[in-house]
Amino acid sequence: MRQVYVNGDYLPETEARISVFDRGFLFADGVYEVTLVLDGKLVDFAGHMRRLRRSLGELGMAFALTDEDLLDIHRELIRQNDIEEGLVYLQVTRGSADRDFLFPAEETPNTVVLFTQKKSLVDSPLAERGQHVVTVEDLRWRRCDIKTVQLLYPSMAKMEAKSRGADDAWLVKDGYVTEGSSNNAYIVTPEGTVVTRDLSTDILHGITREAVLQCAEDLQLRIEERPFTVEEAENAAEAFSTSASGLVSPVVRINGREVGPGRPGPIAARLRQIYLERSRASAV
Amino acid sequence: MRQVYVNGDYLPETEARISVFDRGFLFADGVYEVTLVLDGKLVDFAGHMRRLRRSLGELGMAFALTDEDLLDIHRELIRQNDIEEGLVYLQVTRGSADRDFLFPAEETPNTVVLFTQKKSLVDSPLAERGQHVVTVEDLRWRRCDIKTVQLLYPSMAKMEAKSRGADDAWLVKDGYVTEGSSNNAYIVTPEGTVVTRDLSTDILHGITREAVLQCAEDLQLRIEERPFTVEEAENAAEAFSTSASGLVSPVVRINGREVGPGRPGPIAARLRQIYLERSRASAV
Repeated sequence: MRQVYVNGDYLPETEARISVFDRGFLFADGVYEVTLVLDGKLVDFAGHMRRLRRSLGELGMAFALTDEDLLDIHRELIRQNDIEEGLVYLQVTRGSADRDFLFPAEETPNTVVLFTQKKSLVDSPLAERGQHVVTVEDLRWRRCDIKTVQLLYPSMAKMEAKSRGADDAWLVKDGYVTEGSSNNAYIVTPEGTVVTRDLSTDILHGITREAVLQCAEDLQLRIEERPFTVEEAENAAEAFSTSASGLVSPVVRINGREVGPGRPGPIAARLRQIYLERSRASAV
Repeated sequence: MRQVYVNGDYLPETEARISVFDRGFLFADGVYEVTLVLDGKLVDFAGHMRRLRRSLGELGMAFALTDEDLLDIHRELIRQNDIEEGLVYLQVTRGSADRDFLFPAEETPNTVVLFTQKKSLVDSPLAERGQHVVTVEDLRWRRCDIKTVQLLYPSMAKMEAKSRGADDAWLVKDGYVTEGSSNNAYIVTPEGTVVTRDLSTDILHGITREAVLQCAEDLQLRIEERPFTVEEAENAAEAFSTSASGLVSPVVRINGREVGPGRPGPIAARLRQIYLERSRASAV
Protein backbone atom coordinates (compact mmCIF):
# COMPACT_ATOMS: atom_id res chain seq x y z
CA MET A 1 0.00 0.00 0.00
CA ARG A 2 1.15 3.51 -0.88
CA GLN A 3 2.76 5.48 1.95
CA VAL A 4 1.72 9.11 2.28
CA TYR A 5 3.38 11.93 4.21
CA VAL A 6 1.12 13.95 6.52
CA ASN A 7 2.58 16.51 8.91
CA GLY A 8 5.70 14.58 9.85
CA ASP A 9 4.33 11.05 9.59
CA TYR A 10 4.59 8.44 6.87
CA LEU A 11 1.25 6.64 6.84
CA PRO A 12 -0.54 4.02 4.75
CA GLU A 13 -2.76 5.91 2.28
CA THR A 14 -5.96 4.71 3.95
CA GLU A 15 -4.82 6.34 7.20
CA ALA A 16 -3.61 9.58 5.62
CA ARG A 17 -6.15 12.03 6.95
CA ILE A 18 -6.51 15.68 7.81
CA SER A 19 -8.90 17.64 9.98
CA VAL A 20 -12.26 18.68 8.53
CA PHE A 21 -11.26 22.14 9.83
CA ASP A 22 -8.27 22.29 7.52
CA ARG A 23 -8.37 25.53 5.55
CA GLY A 24 -7.41 23.62 2.44
CA PHE A 25 -10.72 21.77 2.76
CA LEU A 26 -12.92 24.68 3.90
CA PHE A 27 -11.44 27.61 1.94
CA ALA A 28 -9.14 26.15 -0.75
CA ASP A 29 -6.49 28.03 1.21
CA GLY A 30 -3.56 25.96 0.03
CA VAL A 31 -0.90 25.71 -2.65
CA TYR A 32 0.71 22.74 -4.33
CA GLU A 33 3.48 21.49 -6.59
CA VAL A 34 3.80 18.36 -8.70
CA THR A 35 7.31 17.17 -9.45
CA LEU A 36 8.26 14.69 -12.15
CA VAL A 37 10.27 11.61 -11.16
CA LEU A 38 12.52 9.96 -13.75
CA ASP A 39 14.87 7.11 -12.91
CA GLY A 40 13.82 7.54 -9.27
CA LYS A 41 15.07 11.14 -9.25
CA LEU A 42 13.39 14.54 -9.09
CA VAL A 43 13.23 16.77 -12.16
CA ASP A 44 13.43 20.58 -11.79
CA PHE A 45 13.15 20.26 -8.02
CA ALA A 46 14.77 23.65 -7.35
CA GLY A 47 12.33 25.31 -9.75
CA HIS A 48 9.33 23.75 -8.03
CA MET A 49 10.59 24.91 -4.65
CA ARG A 50 11.15 28.43 -5.98
CA ARG A 51 7.59 28.54 -7.29
CA LEU A 52 6.22 27.07 -4.06
CA ARG A 53 7.89 29.91 -2.10
CA ARG A 54 6.43 32.43 -4.52
CA SER A 55 2.89 31.00 -4.13
CA LEU A 56 3.24 30.99 -0.34
CA GLY A 57 4.53 34.57 -0.44
CA GLU A 58 1.66 35.81 -2.60
CA LEU A 59 -0.79 34.36 -0.09
CA GLY A 60 1.12 35.60 2.96
CA MET A 61 1.42 32.03 4.20
CA ALA A 62 4.24 31.30 6.63
CA PHE A 63 5.96 27.93 6.20
CA ALA A 64 8.65 26.46 8.42
CA LEU A 65 10.08 23.64 6.28
CA THR A 66 13.22 24.29 4.25
CA ASP A 67 13.83 23.11 0.70
CA GLU A 68 16.25 20.56 2.19
CA ASP A 69 13.50 19.25 4.50
CA LEU A 70 11.20 18.94 1.52
CA LEU A 71 13.84 17.24 -0.62
CA ASP A 72 14.34 14.66 2.14
CA ILE A 73 10.60 13.97 2.30
CA HIS A 74 10.30 13.70 -1.48
CA ARG A 75 13.19 11.23 -1.57
CA GLU A 76 11.90 9.20 1.34
CA LEU A 77 8.49 8.84 -0.35
CA ILE A 78 10.14 7.85 -3.63
CA ARG A 79 12.10 5.22 -1.73
CA GLN A 80 9.19 3.88 0.33
CA ASN A 81 6.92 3.68 -2.71
CA ASP A 82 9.58 2.45 -5.11
CA ILE A 83 8.92 5.14 -7.73
CA GLU A 84 11.11 4.83 -10.82
CA GLU A 85 8.84 7.01 -12.93
CA GLY A 86 5.90 9.11 -11.82
CA LEU A 87 5.03 12.15 -9.77
CA VAL A 88 5.37 13.52 -6.27
CA TYR A 89 2.50 15.76 -5.19
CA LEU A 90 3.06 18.32 -2.41
CA GLN A 91 0.34 20.43 -0.80
CA VAL A 92 0.74 23.08 1.89
CA THR A 93 -2.26 24.73 3.53
CA ARG A 94 -2.68 27.43 6.15
CA GLY A 95 -3.55 24.70 8.66
CA SER A 96 -6.59 23.94 10.80
CA ALA A 97 -8.69 26.40 12.76
CA ASP A 98 -12.34 26.95 13.51
CA ARG A 99 -14.01 28.25 10.35
CA ASP A 100 -13.48 31.98 9.81
CA PHE A 101 -12.82 34.01 6.67
CA LEU A 102 -10.07 35.77 8.61
CA PHE A 103 -6.78 33.86 8.53
CA PRO A 104 -5.96 31.97 11.74
CA ALA A 105 -3.14 33.09 14.07
CA GLU A 106 0.28 33.25 12.34
CA GLU A 107 1.61 30.45 14.56
CA THR A 108 -1.04 27.98 13.33
CA PRO A 109 0.98 25.04 11.95
CA ASN A 110 0.66 24.44 8.21
CA THR A 111 -0.78 21.22 6.94
CA VAL A 112 1.81 19.51 4.75
CA VAL A 113 0.82 16.52 2.62
CA LEU A 114 2.90 14.67 0.04
CA PHE A 115 2.05 11.58 -1.95
CA THR A 116 3.41 9.76 -4.98
CA GLN A 117 1.81 8.53 -8.16
CA LYS A 118 3.52 5.76 -10.10
CA LYS A 119 2.93 6.48 -13.79
CA SER A 120 4.41 5.70 -17.16
CA LEU A 121 4.98 9.22 -18.45
CA VAL A 122 7.83 8.85 -20.93
CA ASP A 123 6.27 6.06 -22.97
CA SER A 124 2.91 7.73 -23.32
CA PRO A 125 0.35 6.52 -25.89
CA LEU A 126 -1.26 9.97 -25.75
CA ALA A 127 2.02 11.71 -26.61
CA GLU A 128 2.49 9.28 -29.48
CA ARG A 129 -1.01 9.70 -30.89
CA GLY A 130 -1.20 13.42 -30.06
CA GLN A 131 -3.83 15.14 -27.94
CA HIS A 132 -7.20 16.32 -29.15
CA VAL A 133 -8.13 19.55 -27.42
CA VAL A 134 -11.23 21.71 -27.43
CA THR A 135 -11.42 25.32 -26.35
CA VAL A 136 -13.48 26.30 -23.33
CA GLU A 137 -14.04 29.77 -21.88
CA ASP A 138 -11.58 30.61 -19.09
CA LEU A 139 -13.75 31.40 -16.06
CA ARG A 140 -11.02 31.08 -13.42
CA TRP A 141 -10.09 33.68 -10.86
CA ARG A 142 -7.65 36.37 -11.90
CA ARG A 143 -4.54 35.17 -10.06
CA CYS A 144 -3.82 32.02 -12.05
CA ASP A 145 -0.11 32.66 -11.48
CA ILE A 146 -0.53 31.45 -7.90
CA LYS A 147 -0.61 27.64 -7.81
CA THR A 148 -3.57 27.25 -5.46
CA VAL A 149 -5.81 24.22 -5.06
CA GLN A 150 -8.76 26.17 -6.51
CA LEU A 151 -8.86 23.63 -9.32
CA LEU A 152 -12.56 23.06 -9.69
CA TYR A 153 -12.88 24.93 -12.96
CA PRO A 154 -9.88 23.28 -14.67
CA SER A 155 -11.37 19.98 -13.54
CA MET A 156 -14.77 20.92 -15.00
CA ALA A 157 -13.09 22.05 -18.22
CA LYS A 158 -11.32 18.72 -18.55
CA MET A 159 -14.64 16.90 -18.04
CA GLU A 160 -16.22 19.16 -20.69
CA ALA A 161 -13.39 18.21 -23.05
CA LYS A 162 -13.97 14.53 -22.33
CA SER A 163 -17.70 14.87 -22.97
CA ARG A 164 -16.84 16.42 -26.36
CA GLY A 165 -14.60 13.48 -27.22
CA ALA A 166 -11.33 15.31 -26.55
CA ASP A 167 -8.39 14.74 -24.20
CA ASP A 168 -8.03 18.20 -22.74
CA ALA A 169 -9.38 21.74 -22.75
CA TRP A 170 -7.52 24.88 -23.73
CA LEU A 171 -8.91 27.85 -21.86
CA VAL A 172 -9.78 31.01 -23.76
CA LYS A 173 -10.10 34.54 -22.40
CA ASP A 174 -11.21 37.40 -24.66
CA GLY A 175 -10.53 35.25 -27.71
CA TYR A 176 -6.98 34.35 -26.73
CA VAL A 177 -5.77 31.01 -25.37
CA THR A 178 -4.44 31.32 -21.81
CA GLU A 179 -3.31 27.75 -21.10
CA GLY A 180 -4.50 24.14 -20.88
CA SER A 181 -6.46 22.73 -17.94
CA SER A 182 -3.20 21.83 -16.17
CA ASN A 183 -0.45 22.69 -18.63
CA ASN A 184 0.92 25.56 -20.69
CA ALA A 185 -0.16 25.80 -24.35
CA TYR A 186 1.98 26.40 -27.45
CA ILE A 187 1.62 26.62 -31.18
CA VAL A 188 4.18 26.57 -33.94
CA THR A 189 3.31 28.99 -36.73
CA PRO A 190 3.56 28.00 -40.41
CA GLU A 191 6.81 30.04 -40.38
CA GLY A 192 8.23 27.81 -37.60
CA THR A 193 7.96 30.23 -34.69
CA VAL A 194 7.12 28.71 -31.30
CA VAL A 195 4.41 30.86 -29.68
CA THR A 196 3.25 30.63 -26.09
CA ARG A 197 1.44 33.13 -23.91
CA ASP A 198 3.63 35.58 -22.04
CA LEU A 199 3.85 35.36 -18.25
CA SER A 200 1.22 37.35 -16.35
CA THR A 201 -1.42 36.75 -13.69
CA ASP A 202 -3.45 34.97 -16.41
CA ILE A 203 -1.39 31.78 -16.47
CA LEU A 204 0.66 29.51 -14.30
CA HIS A 205 4.36 30.16 -14.60
CA GLY A 206 5.20 26.63 -15.63
CA ILE A 207 8.47 25.15 -14.43
CA THR A 208 8.40 22.81 -17.41
CA ARG A 209 7.54 25.82 -19.61
CA GLU A 210 10.71 27.57 -18.46
CA ALA A 211 12.87 24.52 -19.12
CA VAL A 212 11.31 23.79 -22.52
CA LEU A 213 11.68 27.41 -23.67
CA GLN A 214 15.35 27.13 -22.76
CA CYS A 215 15.58 23.99 -24.92
CA ALA A 216 13.88 25.86 -27.77
CA GLU A 217 16.30 28.74 -27.41
CA ASP A 218 19.26 26.40 -27.43
CA LEU A 219 17.88 24.82 -30.60
CA GLN A 220 17.86 28.35 -32.05
CA LEU A 221 14.12 28.22 -32.66
CA ARG A 222 12.30 31.53 -32.99
CA ILE A 223 10.20 32.08 -29.85
CA GLU A 224 7.40 34.57 -29.30
CA GLU A 225 5.87 34.94 -25.86
CA ARG A 226 2.51 36.54 -26.60
CA PRO A 227 -1.20 35.69 -26.61
CA PHE A 228 -2.49 33.75 -29.60
CA THR A 229 -6.06 33.35 -30.82
CA VAL A 230 -8.08 30.15 -31.21
CA GLU A 231 -8.11 30.73 -34.98
CA GLU A 232 -4.31 31.05 -35.02
CA ALA A 233 -4.07 27.79 -33.09
CA GLU A 234 -6.47 25.98 -35.44
CA ASN A 235 -4.33 27.10 -38.38
CA ALA A 236 -0.95 26.42 -36.79
CA ALA A 237 1.65 24.03 -38.21
CA GLU A 238 2.00 22.30 -34.83
CA ALA A 239 0.71 22.59 -31.30
CA PHE A 240 1.73 21.13 -27.96
CA SER A 241 1.49 21.55 -24.22
CA THR A 242 4.02 21.27 -21.40
CA SER A 243 3.66 20.20 -17.77
CA ALA A 244 5.46 18.11 -15.17
CA SER A 245 3.23 15.11 -15.90
CA GLY A 246 2.89 15.57 -19.66
CA LEU A 247 6.44 16.77 -20.35
CA VAL A 248 6.08 18.01 -23.95
CA SER A 249 2.80 16.64 -25.35
CA PRO A 250 1.85 17.18 -29.00
CA VAL A 251 -1.63 18.43 -29.85
CA VAL A 252 -2.96 17.18 -33.18
CA ARG A 253 -6.53 18.38 -33.18
CA ILE A 254 -8.13 21.60 -31.92
CA ASN A 255 -11.93 21.86 -31.86
CA GLY A 256 -12.12 18.90 -34.23
CA ARG A 257 -9.79 20.46 -36.83
CA GLU A 258 -6.48 18.81 -37.58
CA VAL A 259 -3.43 20.85 -36.69
CA GLY A 260 -1.03 20.73 -39.66
CA PRO A 261 -1.08 17.17 -41.03
CA GLY A 262 -2.88 15.89 -37.90
CA ARG A 263 0.16 14.05 -36.59
CA PRO A 264 2.63 15.02 -33.83
CA GLY A 265 4.98 17.59 -35.33
CA PRO A 266 8.78 17.53 -35.56
CA ILE A 267 9.39 20.54 -33.32
CA ALA A 268 7.29 19.12 -30.48
CA ALA A 269 9.03 15.76 -30.90
CA ARG A 270 12.48 17.36 -30.83
CA LEU A 271 11.64 19.47 -27.76
CA ARG A 272 10.24 16.44 -25.96
CA GLN A 273 13.41 14.48 -26.67
CA ILE A 274 15.80 17.25 -25.57
CA TYR A 275 13.74 18.07 -22.50
CA LEU A 276 13.79 14.40 -21.51
CA GLU A 277 17.53 14.10 -22.01
CA ARG A 278 18.24 17.21 -19.97
CA SER A 279 15.79 16.18 -17.25
CA ARG A 280 17.41 12.78 -16.87
CA ALA A 281 20.83 14.41 -16.75
CA SER A 282 19.92 17.06 -14.15
CA ALA A 283 17.45 15.17 -11.92
CA VAL A 284 18.40 15.02 -8.24
CA MET B 1 -15.98 19.01 23.11
CA ARG B 2 -17.86 19.82 19.94
CA GLN B 3 -19.32 16.85 18.05
CA VAL B 4 -18.91 16.88 14.28
CA TYR B 5 -20.69 14.83 11.63
CA VAL B 6 -18.46 13.04 9.10
CA ASN B 7 -19.94 10.56 6.63
CA GLY B 8 -22.47 9.00 8.97
CA ASP B 9 -20.57 9.32 12.24
CA TYR B 10 -20.81 11.83 15.05
CA LEU B 11 -17.25 12.36 16.27
CA PRO B 12 -15.38 14.61 18.71
CA GLU B 13 -13.98 17.51 16.67
CA THR B 14 -10.38 16.39 17.19
CA GLU B 15 -11.25 13.06 15.53
CA ALA B 16 -13.25 14.58 12.68
CA ARG B 17 -11.01 13.81 9.74
CA ILE B 18 -11.16 13.21 6.02
CA SER B 19 -8.81 11.60 3.54
CA VAL B 20 -6.00 13.69 2.05
CA PHE B 21 -7.37 12.38 -1.27
CA ASP B 22 -10.67 14.14 -0.74
CA ARG B 23 -11.49 16.23 -3.80
CA GLY B 24 -12.58 19.03 -1.51
CA PHE B 25 -9.00 19.22 -0.27
CA LEU B 26 -7.18 18.63 -3.58
CA PHE B 27 -9.48 20.43 -6.07
CA ALA B 28 -11.89 22.59 -4.03
CA ASP B 29 -14.47 20.29 -5.59
CA GLY B 30 -17.15 20.83 -2.98
CA VAL B 31 -20.12 22.99 -2.09
CA TYR B 32 -21.45 24.21 1.23
CA GLU B 33 -24.27 25.88 3.09
CA VAL B 34 -24.39 27.75 6.39
CA THR B 35 -27.70 27.80 8.21
CA LEU B 36 -28.63 30.17 11.01
CA VAL B 37 -29.85 28.69 14.29
CA LEU B 38 -32.18 30.76 16.48
CA ASP B 39 -33.81 29.37 19.63
CA GLY B 40 -32.26 26.01 18.75
CA LYS B 41 -34.12 25.94 15.41
CA LEU B 42 -33.05 26.24 11.78
CA VAL B 43 -33.81 29.39 9.80
CA ASP B 44 -34.64 29.18 6.07
CA PHE B 45 -33.68 25.50 6.04
CA ALA B 46 -35.74 24.73 2.93
CA GLY B 47 -34.07 27.61 1.07
CA HIS B 48 -30.59 26.37 1.97
CA MET B 49 -31.47 22.88 0.79
CA ARG B 50 -32.86 24.26 -2.47
CA ARG B 51 -29.63 26.19 -3.08
CA LEU B 52 -27.49 23.17 -2.12
CA ARG B 53 -29.31 21.10 -4.78
CA ARG B 54 -28.74 23.86 -7.32
CA SER B 55 -24.99 24.03 -6.53
CA LEU B 56 -24.69 20.24 -6.77
CA GLY B 57 -26.60 20.28 -10.05
CA GLU B 58 -24.39 22.98 -11.60
CA LEU B 59 -21.33 20.86 -10.77
CA GLY B 60 -22.91 17.59 -11.90
CA MET B 61 -22.35 16.15 -8.43
CA ALA B 62 -24.57 13.23 -7.44
CA PHE B 63 -25.71 13.19 -3.81
CA ALA B 64 -27.67 10.46 -2.10
CA LEU B 65 -28.93 12.16 1.07
CA THR B 66 -32.43 13.63 1.12
CA ASP B 67 -33.40 16.96 2.67
CA GLU B 68 -35.03 14.95 5.45
CA ASP B 69 -31.76 13.09 6.12
CA LEU B 70 -29.95 16.42 6.27
CA LEU B 71 -32.58 17.96 8.54
CA ASP B 72 -32.15 15.04 10.94
CA ILE B 73 -28.37 15.51 10.99
CA HIS B 74 -28.65 19.27 11.49
CA ARG B 75 -31.04 18.74 14.39
CA GLU B 76 -28.94 16.00 15.96
CA LEU B 77 -25.86 18.25 15.88
CA ILE B 78 -27.82 21.14 17.38
CA ARG B 79 -28.95 18.79 20.14
CA GLN B 80 -25.53 17.22 20.82
CA ASN B 81 -23.80 20.60 20.88
CA ASP B 82 -26.56 22.41 22.70
CA ILE B 83 -26.84 25.25 20.16
CA GLU B 84 -29.41 27.88 21.05
CA GLU B 85 -27.95 30.47 18.71
CA GLY B 86 -25.28 30.00 16.09
CA LEU B 87 -24.65 28.28 12.79
CA VAL B 88 -24.66 24.85 11.21
CA TYR B 89 -22.08 24.41 8.46
CA LEU B 90 -22.60 21.70 5.82
CA GLN B 91 -20.09 20.70 3.17
CA VAL B 92 -20.50 18.10 0.43
CA THR B 93 -17.60 17.10 -1.82
CA ARG B 94 -17.23 14.73 -4.76
CA GLY B 95 -15.50 12.29 -2.42
CA SER B 96 -12.05 10.68 -2.34
CA ALA B 97 -10.13 9.25 -5.26
CA ASP B 98 -6.55 9.20 -6.46
CA ARG B 99 -5.69 12.65 -7.77
CA ASP B 100 -6.97 13.27 -11.32
CA PHE B 101 -8.48 16.34 -12.96
CA LEU B 102 -11.15 14.03 -14.39
CA PHE B 103 -14.01 13.44 -11.96
CA PRO B 104 -13.93 10.04 -10.22
CA ALA B 105 -16.49 7.31 -11.02
CA GLU B 106 -20.11 8.40 -10.47
CA GLU B 107 -20.54 5.85 -7.68
CA THR B 108 -17.75 7.40 -5.58
CA PRO B 109 -19.42 8.28 -2.26
CA ASN B 110 -19.62 11.96 -1.42
CA THR B 111 -17.85 13.32 1.61
CA VAL B 112 -20.42 14.93 3.89
CA VAL B 113 -19.29 17.06 6.83
CA LEU B 114 -21.40 19.12 9.20
CA PHE B 115 -20.37 21.10 12.25
CA THR B 116 -21.86 23.74 14.48
CA GLN B 117 -20.61 27.10 15.69
CA LYS B 118 -22.11 28.57 18.85
CA LYS B 119 -22.29 32.33 18.34
CA SER B 120 -24.15 35.34 19.59
CA LEU B 121 -25.51 36.68 16.32
CA VAL B 122 -28.63 38.59 17.36
CA ASP B 123 -26.96 40.73 20.02
CA SER B 124 -24.06 41.76 17.84
CA PRO B 125 -21.78 44.66 18.81
CA LEU B 126 -20.82 44.97 15.15
CA ALA B 127 -24.44 45.32 14.05
CA GLU B 128 -24.97 47.97 16.73
CA ARG B 129 -21.88 49.99 15.85
CA GLY B 130 -22.21 49.37 12.10
CA GLN B 131 -19.61 47.85 9.80
CA HIS B 132 -16.75 49.69 8.18
CA VAL B 133 -16.14 48.33 4.70
CA VAL B 134 -13.52 48.99 2.07
CA THR B 135 -13.79 48.13 -1.59
CA VAL B 136 -11.47 45.57 -3.15
CA GLU B 137 -11.31 44.41 -6.75
CA ASP B 138 -13.37 41.28 -7.40
CA LEU B 139 -10.90 38.71 -8.76
CA ARG B 140 -13.05 35.63 -8.21
CA TRP B 141 -13.99 33.06 -10.82
CA ARG B 142 -17.01 33.79 -12.95
CA ARG B 143 -19.50 31.37 -11.41
CA CYS B 144 -19.98 33.05 -8.05
CA ASP B 145 -23.59 31.87 -8.10
CA ILE B 146 -22.37 28.35 -7.25
CA LYS B 147 -21.61 28.11 -3.54
CA THR B 148 -18.27 26.30 -3.82
CA VAL B 149 -15.48 26.15 -1.25
CA GLN B 150 -13.21 28.19 -3.55
CA LEU B 151 -13.14 30.84 -0.85
CA LEU B 152 -9.50 31.84 -0.87
CA TYR B 153 -10.08 35.21 -2.50
CA PRO B 154 -12.97 36.28 -0.25
CA SER B 155 -10.76 35.27 2.66
CA MET B 156 -7.86 37.34 1.28
CA ALA B 157 -10.22 40.27 0.71
CA LYS B 158 -11.41 40.12 4.30
CA MET B 159 -7.80 40.13 5.50
CA GLU B 160 -7.10 43.10 3.22
CA ALA B 161 -10.06 44.89 4.82
CA LYS B 162 -8.73 44.12 8.28
CA SER B 163 -5.28 45.41 7.36
CA ARG B 164 -6.95 48.66 6.25
CA GLY B 165 -8.74 48.96 9.58
CA ALA B 166 -12.13 47.82 8.29
CA ASP B 167 -14.49 44.98 9.14
CA ASP B 168 -15.21 43.64 5.69
CA ALA B 169 -14.54 44.06 1.98
CA TRP B 170 -17.07 44.84 -0.71
CA LEU B 171 -15.94 43.39 -4.01
CA VAL B 172 -15.97 45.57 -7.12
CA LYS B 173 -16.07 44.45 -10.74
CA ASP B 174 -15.86 46.99 -13.55
CA GLY B 175 -16.65 49.78 -11.10
CA TYR B 176 -19.77 48.14 -9.70
CA VAL B 177 -20.14 46.43 -6.32
CA THR B 178 -20.88 42.72 -6.68
CA GLU B 179 -21.21 41.66 -3.03
CA GLY B 180 -19.39 41.46 0.29
CA SER B 181 -16.74 38.86 1.12
CA SER B 182 -19.44 36.49 2.41
CA ASN B 183 -22.67 38.47 2.21
CA ASN B 184 -24.86 40.39 -0.22
CA ALA B 185 -24.46 44.17 -0.35
CA TYR B 186 -27.16 46.88 -0.33
CA ILE B 187 -27.47 50.62 -0.32
CA VAL B 188 -30.43 52.88 0.39
CA THR B 189 -30.47 55.88 -1.92
CA PRO B 190 -31.16 59.41 -0.63
CA GLU B 191 -34.66 58.89 -2.08
CA GLY B 192 -35.18 55.83 0.12
CA THR B 193 -34.87 53.10 -2.53
CA VAL B 194 -33.21 49.85 -1.45
CA VAL B 195 -30.70 48.86 -4.14
CA THR B 196 -28.91 45.51 -4.39
CA ARG B 197 -27.24 43.82 -7.31
CA ASP B 198 -29.49 41.71 -9.52
CA LEU B 199 -29.04 37.94 -9.56
CA SER B 200 -26.53 36.63 -12.10
CA THR B 201 -23.43 34.47 -12.16
CA ASP B 202 -21.59 37.41 -10.53
CA ILE B 203 -23.04 36.94 -7.04
CA LEU B 204 -24.25 34.34 -4.65
CA HIS B 205 -28.01 34.01 -4.64
CA GLY B 206 -28.37 34.70 -0.95
CA ILE B 207 -31.05 32.87 0.94
CA THR B 208 -31.08 35.71 3.47
CA ARG B 209 -31.14 38.15 0.53
CA GLU B 210 -34.33 36.54 -0.74
CA ALA B 211 -35.98 36.66 2.69
CA VAL B 212 -34.92 40.25 3.40
CA LEU B 213 -36.12 41.49 -0.01
CA GLN B 214 -39.47 39.90 0.81
CA CYS B 215 -39.49 41.84 4.10
CA ALA B 216 -38.65 45.05 2.20
CA GLU B 217 -41.46 44.40 -0.24
CA ASP B 218 -43.93 43.77 2.55
CA LEU B 219 -42.83 47.06 4.13
CA GLN B 220 -43.67 48.64 0.76
CA LEU B 221 -40.13 49.92 0.31
CA ARG B 222 -39.02 50.72 -3.22
CA ILE B 223 -36.55 48.05 -4.37
CA GLU B 224 -34.19 48.13 -7.32
CA GLU B 225 -32.20 45.03 -8.21
CA ARG B 226 -29.34 46.45 -10.28
CA PRO B 227 -25.58 47.06 -10.07
CA PHE B 228 -24.51 50.15 -8.13
CA THR B 229 -21.16 51.95 -8.23
CA VAL B 230 -18.70 52.54 -5.40
CA GLU B 231 -19.41 56.27 -5.68
CA GLU B 232 -23.15 55.66 -5.36
CA ALA B 233 -22.47 53.56 -2.26
CA GLU B 234 -20.23 56.20 -0.71
CA ASN B 235 -22.99 58.76 -1.21
CA ALA B 236 -25.89 56.56 -0.10
CA ALA B 237 -28.21 57.39 2.79
CA GLU B 238 -27.69 53.92 4.29
CA ALA B 239 -25.90 50.71 3.50
CA PHE B 240 -26.07 47.19 4.84
CA SER B 241 -25.28 43.56 4.11
CA THR B 242 -27.20 40.33 4.56
CA SER B 243 -26.07 36.77 5.27
CA ALA B 244 -27.02 33.80 7.43
CA SER B 245 -24.45 34.75 10.07
CA GLY B 246 -24.81 38.55 9.85
CA LEU B 247 -28.58 38.64 9.32
CA VAL B 248 -29.07 42.30 8.31
CA SER B 249 -25.87 44.20 9.23
CA PRO B 250 -25.66 47.98 8.84
CA VAL B 251 -22.65 49.50 7.09
CA VAL B 252 -21.70 52.97 8.36
CA ARG B 253 -18.44 53.64 6.58
CA ILE B 254 -17.25 52.84 3.06
CA ASN B 255 -13.60 53.47 2.16
CA GLY B 256 -13.29 55.69 5.22
CA ARG B 257 -16.27 57.89 4.29
CA GLU B 258 -19.31 57.96 6.52
CA VAL B 259 -22.48 56.63 4.94
CA GLY B 260 -25.28 59.12 5.71
CA PRO B 261 -24.84 60.29 9.29
CA GLY B 262 -22.33 57.50 10.01
CA ARG B 263 -24.74 55.58 12.20
CA PRO B 264 -26.83 52.48 11.46
CA GLY B 265 -29.80 53.66 9.43
CA PRO B 266 -33.53 53.21 10.16
CA ILE B 267 -34.28 51.05 7.11
CA ALA B 268 -31.53 48.54 7.94
CA ALA B 269 -32.69 48.48 11.56
CA ARG B 270 -36.31 47.89 10.56
CA LEU B 271 -35.36 45.14 8.11
CA ARG B 272 -33.16 43.46 10.72
CA GLN B 273 -36.01 43.49 13.21
CA ILE B 274 -38.63 42.13 10.82
CA TYR B 275 -36.27 39.52 9.42
CA LEU B 276 -35.49 38.35 12.95
CA GLU B 277 -39.17 38.16 13.91
CA ARG B 278 -40.06 36.19 10.81
CA SER B 279 -37.05 33.91 11.20
CA ARG B 280 -37.95 33.07 14.78
CA ALA B 281 -41.54 32.43 13.74
CA SER B 282 -40.70 30.18 10.80
CA ALA B 283 -37.60 28.33 12.07
CA VAL B 284 -37.86 24.54 12.09
